[in-house]
Amino acid sequence: MVEKLVGARRQAALAELHGWAEVEDRDAIRKTFHFPDFATAWGFMTRVALKAEKMDHHPEWFNVYNRVEVILATHDVEGLSDRDVELAHHMDAIALEHDR
Amino acid sequence: MVEKLVGARRQAALAELHGWAEVEDRDAIRKTFHFPDFATAWGFMTRVALKAEKMDHHPEWFNVYNRVEVILATHDVEGLSDRDVELAHHMDAIALEHDR
Repeated sequence: MVEKLVGARRQAALAELHGWAEVEDRDAIRKTFHFPDFATAWGFMTRVALKAEKMDHHPEWFNVYNRVEVILATHDVEGLSDRDVELAHHMDAIALEHDR
Repeated sequence: MVEKLVGARRQAALAELHGWAEVEDRDAIRKTFHFPDFATAWGFMTRVALKAEKMDHHPEWFNVYNRVEVILATHDVEGLSDRDVELAHHMDAIALEHDR
């Protein structure tokens, strides 16, 4: 079972993320990624999509041209879980490769 | 040059679209697509992405799991153009193939 991320474990997990912020009106995290163009943004999204499908854990995301706005949360716990933190780290690593 | 879609031409173009609605607070059209699962939604988005890149005309879109919410508008005319209508028709045709 997926467990809700709370307390000290939650604080530690969020502290290790770069550029992710807590969403104001719900228990979730968000980040906006910028790329040189649509093709690069799409390349990023495609790699994230494969990872998300493999994890069976999918982002909420908005794209227009070179910008990708992401919100991560875990439906089953109505909040954040380790899976969001894991996917966030993957997205950061993939974004670094696609932004260069 | 891309021309803004107005008057009778605009009305006729929008009347030919199925399930697209005008956005309330801006000159744009929107539609929400539902698919059986993420993989199918992603397959749809990928085909649309290739078409959009080829047209050099990109959607504003939001995805979570099997749902894709799309807004189409043309930045250069600050409103709707034939390119939005063309992309909308393509999206409808692609969605039909991915929903079966």
